[in-house]
Amino acid sequence: MLPMRFPVTFVAPVLLLLSVTSGNSEDYRKTLISTEENIRVEEWNLDFADLGLPVEARWSIRKDVLRGGKQEGVNRIVMDNGLVRFVIIPTRGMSILEVTMGNLRLGWDSPVRESVHPRHIDLQSRGGLGWLEGFNEWMVRCGLESAGHPGEDRFTNNTGDEAVMNLTLHGKIGNIPASEVEVVVEGEAPYRIGIRGRVDERMFYGPQLELWTELWTQPGSPAFTLRDALTNRGGSDQEFQLIYHANFGPPILEEGARLVAPMRQVSPFNDHAAMHMDWQPIYGPPAQGFTEQVYCLRLVGGTDDRTEVVLHNAMADKGVLMAWSLAELPYLTQWKNTADSASGYVTGIEPGTGFPYNRNVERLYDRVPVLKPGETRRFHLDFTLLAEPRDVADAVDRIRTLARGVRTRIQTTPEADPELTE
Amino acid sequence: MLPMRFPVTFVAPVLLLLSVTSGNSEDYRKTLISTEENIRVEEWNLDFADLGLPVEARWSIRKDVLRGGKQEGVNRIVMDNGLVRFVIIPTRGMSILEVTMGNLRLGWDSPVRESVHPRHIDLQSRGGLGWLEGFNEWMVRCGLESAGHPGEDRFTNNTGDEAVMNLTLHGKIGNIPASEVEVVVEGEAPYRIGIRGRVDERMFYGPQLELWTELWTQPGSPAFTLRDALTNRGGSDQEFQLIYHANFGPPILEEGARLVAPMRQVSPFNDHAAMHMDWQPIYGPPAQGFTEQVYCLRLVGGTDDRTEVVLHNAMADKGVLMAWSLAELPYLTQWKNTADSASGYVTGIEPGTGFPYNRNVERLYDRVPVLKPGETRRFHLDFTLLAEPRDVADAVDRIRTLARGVRTRIQTTPEADPELTE
Amino acid sequence: MLPMRFPVTFVAPVLLLLSVTSGNSEDYRKTLISTEENIRVEEWNLDFADLGLPVEARWSIRKDVLRGGKQEGVNRIVMDNGLVRFVIIPTRGMSILEVTMGNLRLGWDSPVRESVHPRHIDLQSRGGLGWLEGFNEWMVRCGLESAGHPGEDRFTNNTGDEAVMNLTLHGKIGNIPASEVEVVVEGEAPYRIGIRGRVDERMFYGPQLELWTELWTQPGSPAFTLRDALTNRGGSDQEFQLIYHANFGPPILEEGARLVAPMRQVSPFNDHAAMHMDWQPIYGPPAQGFTEQVYCLRLVGGTDDRTEVVLHNAMADKGVLMAWSLAELPYLTQWKNTADSASGYVTGIEPGTGFPYNRNVERLYDRVPVLKPGETRRFHLDFTLLAEPRDVADAVDRIRTLARGVRTRIQTTPEADPELTE
Repeated sequence: MLPMRFPVTFVAPVLLLLSVTSGNSEDYRKTLISTEENIRVEEWNLDFADLGLPVEARWSIRKDVLRGGKQEGVNRIVMDNGLVRFVIIPTRGMSILEVTMGNLRLGWDSPVRESVHPRHIDLQSRGGLGWLEGFNEWMVRCGLESAGHPGEDRFTNNTGDEAVMNLTLHGKIGNIPASEVEVVVEGEAPYRIGIRGRVDERMFYGPQLELWTELWTQPGSPAFTLRDALTNRGGSDQEFQLIYHANFGPPILEEGARLVAPMRQVSPFNDHAAMHMDWQPIYGPPAQGFTEQVYCLRLVGGTDDRTEVVLHNAMADKGVLMAWSLAELPYLTQWKNTADSASGYVTGIEPGTGFPYNRNVERLYDRVPVLKPGETRRFHLDFTLLAEPRDVADAVDRIRTLARGVRTRIQTTPEADPELTE
Repeated sequence: MLPMRFPVTFVAPVLLLLSVTSGNSEDYRKTLISTEENIRVEEWNLDFADLGLPVEARWSIRKDVLRGGKQEGVNRIVMDNGLVRFVIIPTRGMSILEVTMGNLRLGWDSPVRESVHPRHIDLQSRGGLGWLEGFNEWMVRCGLESAGHPGEDRFTNNTGDEAVMNLTLHGKIGNIPASEVEVVVEGEAPYRIGIRGRVDERMFYGPQLELWTELWTQPGSPAFTLRDALTNRGGSDQEFQLIYHANFGPPILEEGARLVAPMRQVSPFNDHAAMHMDWQPIYGPPAQGFTEQVYCLRLVGGTDDRTEVVLHNAMADKGVLMAWSLAELPYLTQWKNTADSASGYVTGIEPGTGFPYNRNVERLYDRVPVLKPGETRRFHLDFTLLAEPRDVADAVDRIRTLARGVRTRIQTTPEADPELTE
Repeated sequence: MLPMRFPVTFVAPVLLLLSVTSGNSEDYRKTLISTEENIRVEEWNLDFADLGLPVEARWSIRKDVLRGGKQEGVNRIVMDNGLVRFVIIPTRGMSILEVTMGNLRLGWDSPVRESVHPRHIDLQSRGGLGWLEGFNEWMVRCGLESAGHPGEDRFTNNTGDEAVMNLTLHGKIGNIPASEVEVVVEGEAPYRIGIRGRVDERMFYGPQLELWTELWTQPGSPAFTLRDALTNRGGSDQEFQLIYHANFGPPILEEGARLVAPMRQVSPFNDHAAMHMDWQPIYGPPAQGFTEQVYCLRLVGGTDDRTEVVLHNAMADKGVLMAWSLAELPYLTQWKNTADSASGYVTGIEPGTGFPYNRNVERLYDRVPVLKPGETRRFHLDFTLLAEPRDVADAVDRIRTLARGVRTRIQTTPEADPELTE
């Protein structure tokens, strides 16, 4: 029996232990952060027993605050669905630090050890590479005004003139603290649990973009879903860019790991990547002094333009399945960074509205979408952790079916004209 | 009977409820923030009943902290004089978020919804326009080292050489948290209540400017006063700039709203504004894609160089009267930004020590004052909320009297040589 | 009898008062800040009586948090060894604000009055001089990726290309909050007390430098020691720079104060300093409009390359002795800034791995050391407060002995080619 909308207050934990009799199917909701209600809950937790739900999985959700160093004051939510454990960082744009299921982990070991509070990030430092001082998440969104490489681009300034600004690497959204965060437990089977958060990238004389993020999972399931909604709250048309920068280290990434994707075209990001095209789907061991190799992929979709990719380890007994709609996110960037472990042994599998060139380049290739005033775009990504050889094989089979009869066009020259990206 | 200097401690609310017998006329003071005493009161409140004052207006003062998003940790003071309610943000340079009296409001609806903590503002972003990421107040001071548009200007660096720095829009003072904040209740009739705050713009090898701000009002009155004192604490002469950026949206601003000012001269800020000079005193409706129009006004003063302006709505039944000394603030900038509501429908009426050109331009026109070591300048601005047709008419009459016999010189070319401001 | 590793918890103060019976000699340790254990102790204190140690000196250690203005949330530790009192600021890279013994003080009166939280520092502001907005400590370390003057230098960016970045004055380390901080009380005579802190300057595609700082003193002693260890946690060779920027105002600095150092060579930092070489060892009175004079010193070392310098006042009855190894810190910078008191009357005596030119200049002169992956360098500096004429005389004698027979080479042209530093 699920209780409906408790009169939740700061003494909620006590109330939650009260037995509930109603069979009402309304969702349970708990606000953890709200600028509108002037709330930030410091510590809080909830588990399956508190709500007396008829589920077998022993799920729990916990909220606390990180302490010390550059992580002082950072909000953290740990959601465990009974099988899979998610660590969400509302203070860093609702990024997901890691997802673990037993010894299978989505995430990586960045040289950045702390979940850095945005107040310690100067996006403009190091020629626009300051974003790298906080980069350590499994999933960080790049965007929203811009999502790609640093460099000059034009914009309209406060006097109505066209002016030039220096865009910074991967934009701001990963370093904006969430304004609204709530926990939701659905009141009907399968009693899904979710974390919703709103991140605002708003300013005067600039973008007024609002991103609602949602992370949903079913108790006891190895799968989960991101459901995002991006809205232009401004009074004028607004360009945007959005890249889902999902990053994987061991145990999935290792020598011989492989990306399986239904590619209809692949091209290198630059001349350096072009020299290593033969090995594009396969990963090497950690290598000191490795320079990143980036590839631009266009995939085949099935029903509703839905596509799928698998990243799996050398033995094909550990992996992850990612699925999304090409209508929403038409482009996939593969970032291979098999450097030594201390520097960061990691690959990014990054569905996006474009590739990570500077916005001025992306615009030339017509990959910078525009939202009208009040318009919303939705992005829906599904993930499944694959922990058995059979799971990996089944997922790979599905992708092979999707790609059946498709010839991959291999372009050996960089995706964007190198003269534009110098 | 007013109690004198209570032995106020952190348990003050209790003590304040004790009845007091003495008739002593000393002021009541309560420190809310003090770097010198290492104090920051988290939550606190006081009202007329606590002090047992012989006033009819049911005034109150409340201090709390904002939570969530970019406003996490921002200090807020709400002072209600029984008729008018003030929201002061000590963390944002003692800015005043809004002033309300029934349905009359001084303030505006910025796309920036939160009172953004300065730690999330990078003044240098967007080519020096980062200030706009936090801009949403009714009253924000621009200054102190510089107050105008971004761009290069020279300064003396640590090796004694002349160097070039990029000034940022409207300077730093609006994004510096107050170091000292206290509440004062006067012990004699009319028992005025006030909030005092000190904001320091100090650095090594740079300006050492100290601004004491004061907001005073009398219980039950529709009027209030700002009394600021700016002191150069450095050992050398110090340039400064100060603009009182007061911003108004509905209900005062609407189609047909009007600025009534005793102008002896008006000129456009740039070529764009020059094209719309005919409509300078009058406001249009919200318009998508509107580009700001800025005018530079020189006013007539009366006794003691005191001048007055009124901004009122179309029906002339709601408005505000602003009064100040031209000896203190000789220039008035009118910023018309009648954009659509989502983008920000707003006008700024901005008395200042100069106009908001970059400091290198202002210096050429001799509008950058200098403070000697230890020297203080005072700035005194009076405001009255006008809620009845009669109040508006009376105020407009006063201004007409002030302007009697004055011919307004209308200059149709930009105030500053356009070649200097490119 | 020293108790060993108390079961210290957040109610520790109570536990510490319990009498302890064991004679075990293990050290007492208390974690105050730890990102790894997710700890930040808000307030805490400990004194000699709590541990029942057989020492005469009534030492104490206290931890609190600063409030108000730009110092809100800054952690502070005050350690008093019974004779000398140290104020350490973990939030500002373990800097030491001041060291006092009666009326003798190591420290200075900066125009920056607050211990500014790094979140309010934009190192890139003012053409890379933003560091000066927080500069007020007796001892602040400069480094670690770079430690000198601002300006362009090259680095390797995320695509493996050589790129250009603007280094900022004195680097980042002084504005990085410590990730781990602990108090240690040794369990054996002389029962030394110490504060240890780890400051990480780490990023992705950048340096991964880890600095462990230690401040040790013996109860009742006028002497203390810094023991730092710098480790490259990255997978590649890493350049670094480290300068110990120790700053002195009155009462040691005054007209006629003197730096006594066993110099084998002295040269001016620039043409301006060259004009005042005759007065290099001696200090003038506070002077309005004074421009800094900087000298580059090379010293003579004794056993183990250990060298010593004394800074003492005009009467030679107050001073400080500094000692370190030239193998660790081969260069000494003397920064004379005898400006008026309001601007900052101060001198810096700064042992370093190089001089404070921009890194691109230092590299040309082969003064930018490199750490291999996993390599550690240690830095050990000893300080003694000199409060009596006899103490000063003894210290000066020791330096004269060290310098016996050494001819100081006086170079009248700037240390670095002026064409390189323009």
